[in-house]
Amino acid sequence: MIAGEYKQMLGQKSVIREIAEYGAVRAKEIGSENVFDYSLGNPSVPVPQAFTDKLVELAQSPNPAAVHGYSPSLGIDSVREKIAASLERRFGIAYRREHIFMTTGAAGAIAHALRAVTVPGDEVLTFAPYFPEYVPYVNKTGAVLRVVPADTENFQINFSEFKKMLTAKTSAVLINTPNNPSGAVYSEDTIRKLAEILQEKEREFGHEIYLISDEPYREIVFQGVNAPYVAKYHPNSITCYSFSKSLSLPGERIGYIAVNPACPDAELIVNMCGQISRGIGHNCPPSIIQLAVAEVVDMTADLSVYETNMNILYDALTDMGFSVVKPGGTFYMFPKALEKDAVAFCKKALDYDLLLVPSDTFGCPGYFRIAYCIPTEKVQRSLEAFRKLADAYK
Amino acid sequence: MIAGEYKQMLGQKSVIREIAEYGAVRAKEIGSENVFDYSLGNPSVPVPQAFTDKLVELAQSPNPAAVHGYSPSLGIDSVREKIAASLERRFGIAYRREHIFMTTGAAGAIAHALRAVTVPGDEVLTFAPYFPEYVPYVNKTGAVLRVVPADTENFQINFSEFKKMLTAKTSAVLINTPNNPSGAVYSEDTIRKLAEILQEKEREFGHEIYLISDEPYREIVFQGVNAPYVAKYHPNSITCYSFSKSLSLPGERIGYIAVNPACPDAELIVNMCGQISRGIGHNCPPSIIQLAVAEVVDMTADLSVYETNMNILYDALTDMGFSVVKPGGTFYMFPKALEKDAVAFCKKALDYDLLLVPSDTFGCPGYFRIAYCIPTEKVQRSLEAFRKLADAYK
Repeated sequence: MIAGEYKQMLGQKSVIREIAEYGAVRAKEIGSENVFDYSLGNPSVPVPQAFTDKLVELAQSPNPAAVHGYSPSLGIDSVREKIAASLERRFGIAYRREHIFMTTGAAGAIAHALRAVTVPGDEVLTFAPYFPEYVPYVNKTGAVLRVVPADTENFQINFSEFKKMLTAKTSAVLINTPNNPSGAVYSEDTIRKLAEILQEKEREFGHEIYLISDEPYREIVFQGVNAPYVAKYHPNSITCYSFSKSLSLPGERIGYIAVNPACPDAELIVNMCGQISRGIGHNCPPSIIQLAVAEVVDMTADLSVYETNMNILYDALTDMGFSVVKPGGTFYMFPKALEKDAVAFCKKALDYDLLLVPSDTFGCPGYFRIAYCIPTEKVQRSLEAFRKLADAYK
Repeated sequence: MIAGEYKQMLGQKSVIREIAEYGAVRAKEIGSENVFDYSLGNPSVPVPQAFTDKLVELAQSPNPAAVHGYSPSLGIDSVREKIAASLERRFGIAYRREHIFMTTGAAGAIAHALRAVTVPGDEVLTFAPYFPEYVPYVNKTGAVLRVVPADTENFQINFSEFKKMLTAKTSAVLINTPNNPSGAVYSEDTIRKLAEILQEKEREFGHEIYLISDEPYREIVFQGVNAPYVAKYHPNSITCYSFSKSLSLPGERIGYIAVNPACPDAELIVNMCGQISRGIGHNCPPSIIQLAVAEVVDMTADLSVYETNMNILYDALTDMGFSVVKPGGTFYMFPKALEKDAVAFCKKALDYDLLLVPSDTFGCPGYFRIAYCIPTEKVQRSLEAFRKLADAYK
């Protein structure tokens, strides 16, 4: 039988897709350089040369079977060791190979983590605004995603709502800092308070509440901002990482799970991930990409353009009267729309060839997301369009 | 909550792992060259130079964002087109891009195909001997795998048992030809008869019965053997392919689903696969590997060593008195064990430093699998060990 649950997903109309399709048509009319496409979070900077060099060296290895051969289901041992050592060096937590599971990006990491620590019927909490793909990630495990309303003041955590929603059915809390779509970085106060509540509730309910920390933007943090390492604050933490943004290779699907060594079930969870893989046909990320990233694990692409773009946009937009919480990292910004209906606002923006994403699917109506991973000269040229858009609301 | 279903899987003792561990210990004692490891199906021949050249060229591209950027969730359009064109050229079926979904190897392909055409409670039939990973692939979708007993005469299909087990609850039949572990290639008669039964039962039950054809060994077919293209015989066919064996790069996790254009729901199934991905964190195989295989899609590694090894082993083993169905392809052979208990037989083989896999997990007790993807000189040196093992049973 054709599986109705997936067929049904196809019927859901996507505003983002509609905007992207408009952009493609418009680009043919006026040239793509004149369409200000802020809709997609696709890294725009080149990979580090060291990564390319390593990849070429591996491809030309005299022993191709070693390079292209099967990876163990938990990942290549030497790769897991290098990642553990890097995390220990950088964050002072004594990770070992046994705590690392290699994944196909953060998506694969979250999909595995959720399956390891939830059973059908469990609840997983996340905080608005949130990455919309969390809905299928969580709901397709049999658990249920519940969204805590946003703290629209600072895009930190709305703790009063959180405490109401955190019940004995909650087996995991899924966070994303630096955050897509808000660009907010959770402060040490926020993370500490979150961890305290989790630990208090673990004692009260008599079971673990796992903190699943989705961290693909960990290396994109702006000057003067402190981005604490989440796992330091809660023993039952599962860090989900992707090299997509730090090394600028989102298509290569490479990331990892790091389970806090202080988590009593850390090694069990990693080993369970190997079993989870068997049911979803994952079978480890590509061997050659694992081997190549392991050599540049402490490196990043030149990410400075994102901060440059952020500053230009933040200054200009606040000057135009937009209400914006200044991003602490990522390549996203999340200003308030100039009318209540963010979809209508983003449709009006198309009149000025601005492709923006309305915030409704992020669980926080009335805002819009700017993905400013585009060239700086284009950001500068787009300011005039933003100004016209703002003027249209005066 | 820690998910019991995956924790429990960890407790299952694996005979193959026990044998592999023994092999590793023994290799340290007497040197790995003296341990005849026939346990693992890991391709041993180098990738084609053309693949390496293309991979290097892509890695050094002046536009790295195009190479390492996100792939669409169904796969890169140009890659899907090249695969469709190759299939049409080779097998005369008018595949188009719309019928192709890129996957992380055959495992990913089967995992997606099963989710697309089954609903929880459906039954999926397969034929012994079968690849043991079919159990988690099927059962983790909510469907139930049922195994049709083997035709031990020729390792074709036991049709009388098949007809008994094929009921209105059957939504898919999963086959693997050339077959792991038997090495058998289904004849045109077998496939034609299978397809006739499926179509008769589709009419009787009033619903589709999908034929999911797992074909990672499609390019390893020996002289004089005809390996018909399965999809030609049944409209509702989903071909699951992997480049692991044909290009000798199992670690790079690259393959595809090709849905027969004659299947009324072909495009729907491909699009559903994109939705299925969202729930399991798959998100397309690595971009650079997709782009590289597309350039060598009609090529294979030099696979001739597998036939050389097969002939040496087949002649020697039959001469020693082993009962063996001559393989038509793959790099596996599946002789009858010399005692009823194949596990005991394979444990005895360890006395002669022969690492063989007992057939119990393949659903066909009393046999053992030889994975002869090892150097020919080692195959030759191993014959003495096989002879001593056979003598021990005289």
